[in-house]
This record gives sequence, structure tokens and C-alpha cells, in this order.
Amino acid sequence: MTNPLLLAKPVPAPEWSVAEWLNADGPVGLADLRGRVVVLHAFQMLCPGCVLHGVPQTTKLFQFFDPRDVAVIGIHTVFEHHAVMNAEALRVFLHEFRVKVPVGIDVAGDDRIPQTMRRYEMRGTPSLLLIDRAGMLRAHKMGQVEDLAVGAAIQQLIDEPAP
Amino acid sequence: MTNPLLLAKPVPAPEWSVAEWLNADGPVGLADLRGRVVVLHAFQMLCPGCVLHGVPQTTKLFQFFDPRDVAVIGIHTVFEHHAVMNAEALRVFLHEFRVKVPVGIDVAGDDRIPQTMRRYEMRGTPSLLLIDRAGMLRAHKMGQVEDLAVGAAIQQLIDEPAP
Amino acid sequence: MTNPLLLAKPVPAPEWSVAEWLNADGPVGLADLRGRVVVLHAFQMLCPGCVLHGVPQTTKLFQFFDPRDVAVIGIHTVFEHHAVMNAEALRVFLHEFRVKVPVGIDVAGDDRIPQTMRRYEMRGTPSLLLIDRAGMLRAHKMGQVEDLAVGAAIQQLIDEPAP
Amino acid sequence: MTNPLLLAKPVPAPEWSVAEWLNADGPVGLADLRGRVVVLHAFQMLCPGCVLHGVPQTTKLFQFFDPRDVAVIGIHTVFEHHAVMNAEALRVFLHEFRVKVPVGIDVAGDDRIPQTMRRYEMRGTPSLLLIDRAGMLRAHKMGQVEDLAVGAAIQQLIDEPAP
Repeated sequence: MTNPLLLAKPVPAPEWSVAEWLNADGPVGLADLRGRVVVLHAFQMLCPGCVLHGVPQTTKLFQFFDPRDVAVIGIHTVFEHHAVMNAEALRVFLHEFRVKVPVGIDVAGDDRIPQTMRRYEMRGTPSLLLIDRAGMLRAHKMGQVEDLAVGAAIQQLIDEPAP
Repeated sequence: MTNPLLLAKPVPAPEWSVAEWLNADGPVGLADLRGRVVVLHAFQMLCPGCVLHGVPQTTKLFQFFDPRDVAVIGIHTVFEHHAVMNAEALRVFLHEFRVKVPVGIDVAGDDRIPQTMRRYEMRGTPSLLLIDRAGMLRAHKMGQVEDLAVGAAIQQLIDEPAP
Repeated sequence: MTNPLLLAKPVPAPEWSVAEWLNADGPVGLADLRGRVVVLHAFQMLCPGCVLHGVPQTTKLFQFFDPRDVAVIGIHTVFEHHAVMNAEALRVFLHEFRVKVPVGIDVAGDDRIPQTMRRYEMRGTPSLLLIDRAGMLRAHKMGQVEDLAVGAAIQQLIDEPAP
Repeated sequence: MTNPLLLAKPVPAPEWSVAEWLNADGPVGLADLRGRVVVLHAFQMLCPGCVLHGVPQTTKLFQFFDPRDVAVIGIHTVFEHHAVMNAEALRVFLHEFRVKVPVGIDVAGDDRIPQTMRRYEMRGTPSLLLIDRAGMLRAHKMGQVEDLAVGAAIQQLIDEPAP
């Protein structure tokens, strides 16, 4: 059985660059999460597909999986309308939409594309990325993803033998 | 038959105060709309009930009714987090969520409550208000409203004999 | 304003033929309803579009409008699988899905198409028909219909001056 | 991580008793499926929770998982209104609702409860049951179940080491 979300050729997941963490006690690096499955949800607070689908799904994943197995993390990858999707606005968004997931703000890049978004070669938002316990990027999907498929894919990564 | 949305005691609808109009050719005053039914949808761009329900319903009303009979208007009544729900942010929101309805930005008041919101005694967002052809406030409802009820209420106001 | 559900050329609504009434105290003829708006919902109990959309919408209409203004009636127009969509099965369906709307069972015809369905020239199920206070057929639509449009159309027929 | 669907104390899954198979080439026994995960969805064709939620979810599971790993099976456990939920009616239901999942008709019991339903101690419909590769009953849940939880639970059973 091959979950259609999973990449045929995993590659090492690059480290993310975060300017500021919200909903978190302190900085969270990818290396700190080695040994756990990582769900990385890249979004923009004024992107309709994120607000209506991606962010609520990320909250469901955050509530469902045991944090000892799965780290669910949002990353605010603003590539347009930077002035109005700033840290202060994001803080209000997370508060009003009751999002408790830790969210890192992607670091601005040399052009409109922020650094983590560039490094992961994301094509837009929302994007869902799964990283396995060994730090390999195993899924990378833009747009709406079915709960059934993402639930099964995450569980498969949880169940893999330790590297 | 009494539509439960309609007020037992209509009162004259107060004029609104708008600092800036978006999606409009110029200022729109309540007096300019005399003779038409007015749907006034008060919202905030980061209020979940507005984004998920009120704004999409307002777009449906805007597309469904003949503009010669019904003027559908949004009013951005920001009463919290003023700094991040400013005109520039609202412009991005309307663009990204493809909202074509004319939207007026309520004028700041002496306290956190903007002037139109205060004058209409709105209790929060989203709020749906219906004004009849004679300028009387006929419905005023906070929260989620069924399409069936609002469609019937607007049609009833359309059908009333001219004042 | 022309509601897109309303027919350009109304015709007198034919009387229906009903073999048995469920959820009703006795037979209900179209002539008995003169002076009221009539919502006629033609369905089959094993038609997915009926079960998922048409029947729940009919229940909403039945609960929303004042019965002094609007008579909401279902008609079970079985044109396929007659053996398993019989009166006994329909009774169970209405009970299990908690449908309280009066439902007439269309009388079998010479072929597979029952008499009322034939007389109204219905093309399938679900079909929504609106009849005005004067007994004229004003709307006839197969498939899914938006609550907003049907609410406004019914209200328009309620509001028309008595014939 | 413990999926809340999974039972604390698995027990051997009893064999089912089927009077007739639909959507299947021939009889399917639980013993024939040893080595695969089994999803057993117990439903009645006129139970609203089944029609609106359980049956569509079962179809999604049937389409998503590889049949070499997971056997998805419906069982029609009629415990009320037996006369109208007979084999012929079920055949029409599956056809009209485009259900392709293999469905066994539970064998009538001494009372209203059919034999498989009795043997599995089901309390009603819809009921979702998961059986692991070794034939142990691992989940048994009545009512609506989230896609996320069921997707993860099935994947976990797929991933368990062979018994």
C-alpha cells in the first residue's frame, strides 16, 4: 500500500528559519524534533484555502496525535501583502480563530519569498509537509488534503521502525 | 405570517458614517438608497463567524437580488484589534476572498466602538440589518442567520407597497 | 426583479392523484388549498438527491412558513423500483428520517410513470413545484435548489395581491 | 500514542453469518481474510446516520486503502422494519447510492436481532468494526467516527508486525 501523499523519493528536510514563535515556549528547531514525526503546515492568515481548510485541519491533527509521537507546527510563509500579514496581525488571527498550534514566522528573504518557503520550494499556501523521525521529507502537498489520507500517512510514519 | 427576523417595532434607520468606501464608485448614503431595500452586513475581517458565514452569505445576497430592488452593503465595524484591521488589511481581505460587495469603513468613535456601530446599537459581529424602502430598520440580528429566512425577509420588504 | 425559479408562462396546475396520504388527517386536494401558496416536492425514498437535499429542504420549508399562507406537501412519485418503494417502505422512511410533512403517494399509471408525475410532466426526482394562491403553476425545477432562491420565491407568491 | 478507537482488550472476532452477498463474486469468510485488516461496517439502508455518514465513509475507505492490505465489507444488520429492508430493497439502495463495497446480508436470528449483530454484541447502526491481520477485534464503535481517527487506526493495524 502506498499512500498517495508520500513522496517516491524522500530527501533530507531542510531546517526552517523562524523570526518569531507564537503559541510556543521558545524556539523549536527541526533538529530538536528528531525522533518524532513532524507535520509542517505552511499558511498565510489571509489565504482562503488556509483559513477554511488547512488551519482547521492542522488544529485537528494537533489535538488528535500524541505530541510524543507527532509535532504539529504551523509556519507563516507570507509571500504577498507582507505589510498587512505581519506578526501583530497574525497574533490576532491565531487568537480570534482559537489556533493553539505553535506557529513560526518565516524569515523574510531577498525577494518576496521568505527563506523557509524558498528552501522547501513551496509553490503556495496552504502546503502540508510531513517529515519522518529521521528528518527526511516524506510528503509535500499544496492545496486541500483529505483527513483520511493525512491521518493514514502520519500514522504510517509513526509506525516505521526507528532509523 | 411573520418572519422571525423582522422587528415588531420598526424604527427609522440612522445614517451610517463611512471613512472610506471599497468596491464602490463613490460614497453611498442611506438617503441615496431610499426606495430600495437595504441589506447592511456589519463585519470584521478577522471575526471567524463573519469569514465563515456572514461574508459568504452577503456575497450570495449581492449576486441573487436585483440591484434595482436591493442594495447590499458591507460595513467594517472594527471594535477590537483596530491596528491590524485597518483599511489596507481590509483591502487585501476583500481581494483574497473575492468579495465584490461595496464595503464602507465605519468611522472611529470616541472609544473603541466606531460611530455607525454605536448609532445602530450593534452588539457584535456579524450583524445583519435590513432597511425597508422607506428607510425604516426592519431587522437587526447578530450571529448566523439561515439563507431561507433572510431570503424570505428581503423578498417581503421588496414586495411591500411603496410608502 | 425576477426570481430565476419562477416560470415566464404560468399555467393552471393540474390536480394530483393520490392513492394514500401519510402524515395527514385525510385527503388533501389542490382545490382545497386555493388561496394558499402550495409547495409540492416530488421525491422517491431511494433517490440520493432527494434524501440528501430535497427532503431536508422540504422539512425546513414546512417548519418555516406559516401553514395559513403556505401548504407544503410531498408527493412520492415512484417511476423505478416500484416493488421496494411501496407504501409500507415509505412509511418506515418517513418515520426513520423524521419527516412530518404530509406526503401523498402518486397513483400508478399505465406505464412505469405514475399519474401525477405524468400530468405535471416531471422529468425526474427531486422536483420542486410552486403553485400560487390562484392555482397557477409558477415554478417547476428538477434537482438541487438553493434555500435563498426558494425562500424568496415562496415569499413572493405569498405577497402577491389576491387574485 | 493510543488511537481512541482501539479497544484496550482485543478479543477474537467471531465469524459472520451471511445469507447473501451483494457486490461480491462469492461468499467471503473472515477466515479467508486472515492476514489482511478487515473493516466491517454494519448498517441498515433506512438508518439516517448510515445513509448520511457511515455508508459514504465506508466507500471512501474502500477506495483509499489497497485491497491487499485492507478488506472493506458492509454487513446489512436489519433489526427493525425487516419487511421493507429486504434483499431486493438493499440491492436497489446499493445501486442508487452507487455503493460498490461488498455487502453481506446478516442471517435472521431467533428474535429481531440478526445472528452476526448478536454475536458481535452490536448496539445499533451504524457500527464500525476493525479486525486485525490475526483476526482479533480491535475496534467497535457505534455512531459517527471522524475520518482522521479511522484512517489512522486502520493504518496502525496495517503496520503492525505480522502475528
